[in-house]
Amino acid sequence: MDRAVDFYPSRVEPKPSIVDRVDPVVWGAGAEAEGPLTPDRIDFFETKGYLAFESFFEREEVGKLATELAAVWTAAGNSDDDTIVCEPDSDTVRSVFAIHESNAVFGDLLRDRRLVSMAEQILGSQVYIHQSRINYKTGFRGKEFYWHSDFETWHTEDGMPRMRALSVSIALSDNYALNGPLMLVPGSHKHYVTCTGATPDDNYKKSLRQQEIGTPDDDSLRWLVDQGGIDAPTGPAGSIVLFDCNTMHGSNSNITPLPRSNIFAVYNSIENALLPPFAGTRPRPDFIANRVVDPIA
Amino acid sequence: MDRAVDFYPSRVEPKPSIVDRVDPVVWGAGAEAEGPLTPDRIDFFETKGYLAFESFFEREEVGKLATELAAVWTAAGNSDDDTIVCEPDSDTVRSVFAIHESNAVFGDLLRDRRLVSMAEQILGSQVYIHQSRINYKTGFRGKEFYWHSDFETWHTEDGMPRMRALSVSIALSDNYALNGPLMLVPGSHKHYVTCTGATPDDNYKKSLRQQEIGTPDDDSLRWLVDQGGIDAPTGPAGSIVLFDCNTMHGSNSNITPLPRSNIFAVYNSIENALLPPFAGTRPRPDFIANRVVDPIA
Repeated sequence: MDRAVDFYPSRVEPKPSIVDRVDPVVWGAGAEAEGPLTPDRIDFFETKGYLAFESFFEREEVGKLATELAAVWTAAGNSDDDTIVCEPDSDTVRSVFAIHESNAVFGDLLRDRRLVSMAEQILGSQVYIHQSRINYKTGFRGKEFYWHSDFETWHTEDGMPRMRALSVSIALSDNYALNGPLMLVPGSHKHYVTCTGATPDDNYKKSLRQQEIGTPDDDSLRWLVDQGGIDAPTGPAGSIVLFDCNTMHGSNSNITPLPRSNIFAVYNSIENALLPPFAGTRPRPDFIANRVVDPIA
Repeated sequence: MDRAVDFYPSRVEPKPSIVDRVDPVVWGAGAEAEGPLTPDRIDFFETKGYLAFESFFEREEVGKLATELAAVWTAAGNSDDDTIVCEPDSDTVRSVFAIHESNAVFGDLLRDRRLVSMAEQILGSQVYIHQSRINYKTGFRGKEFYWHSDFETWHTEDGMPRMRALSVSIALSDNYALNGPLMLVPGSHKHYVTCTGATPDDNYKKSLRQQEIGTPDDDSLRWLVDQGGIDAPTGPAGSIVLFDCNTMHGSNSNITPLPRSNIFAVYNSIENALLPPFAGTRPRPDFIANRVVDPIA
């Protein structure tokens, strides 16, 4: 089989660069497509690369999720399963991956039509879950997530060919400006910041704890922020943010006593199935990058 | 000479505790005292433990300070003077101490009557500069300052006997909620959180880069935040925050491209001169804790 065309080469050139996105942001019929999002919302997503909804899930639903979250957290602390990733400098649990497969409550949540129908509308097709996880940012010593475009990693390390995926982050605790909320650079999704440095095999074992390869250089990041600023949607538990696979995002540390946990899923178009990784590396494990296209009904 | 009475023992007991402050917050005539602060402002300071003034210094003054800041930063990078403290994991300059002695522009600024008269009004006496420094929090990789009460350290390591000092932080760049602003716990100044762990000699060589001894335990911090919440005054360069020597404060990391620098001075009452350190350790160097009571005219 011929090697697939690489529309977004990265980790190849000795210097970083900023190139234009070649894919649309809103696929299919776009603003005219059927679905729950109004044309204004579609337009906002197209322009800014994200959409925030305060209190998308009601207090009662959130209560159930909080209970389940606590149970998963406790179990994860006593497990050495591969799906559990710890902080870079301690045994504190940072993320639990593939939660849509291992937990029925969170699995149902991430397949909820209210979420999936928005993803279908933007991506112009049915979708499947490329990745899911719970992120725990504890109080007092919550560590930062440095800036990154998810797509850069999914493309090079997982073989996602095109920018036709989006993420949803569901707040499981209240998000304030001061407890390390998700920060996004509006408009950054229309530019592709290529990174430098070769990708070692099994890079994920380090990068999921603390990412270094695949993060943007200072000049490119400053340029993106000069263009679009930084937004950080806040809101009570149950609020959600949808964001494009190429939107630059990150979060600061959290020394407040207020923990910040969220559940995160990536919806990929069924027409954008994974190919061999463009970095030429061994594919990452299934719990990080699902290689089975299983459309959500 | 008899050992002075220790009103605020810390780093002595095996477990932390929260005890009441025995000193007033506003000394002398308090709200009735002559000075630039209105009774409302005095009352706010007494209750919350801080006062914020947006754009206290005008744009023109701030411009001069920014130029001077850049010069000090460049010089510091090429110097191995003791007054220059670097980040815990790099040679990036984090703070330059005793700036009121080494730099005429910043020296004049910190002796400006507009600042000093507020300190005199609150502390009910003439004041002198106990410590001064510039803090650089760079963009992209600005590190957090963990929560602490300055007084706990000044008492144990410097021998400051009573809570009769306050700090001013002057923003030399714009402060936003997202670039690691100073966070304060309102009302925390009325409680003294004792810490655990003995103080090694020369602890400052480590603690100025990354503080561990002298930081509050999680339960005490959570209790303080449950009482008072967290405030984080923001504003353009030239904004200032005055805060009590015992107000719990800290700041998160800063991954944004927006640097956050400030100049910081501690005004101590001339009636509160330093004694031998209550931890029984060797006094810290003069550039950190000035032992000469030199009232500002």
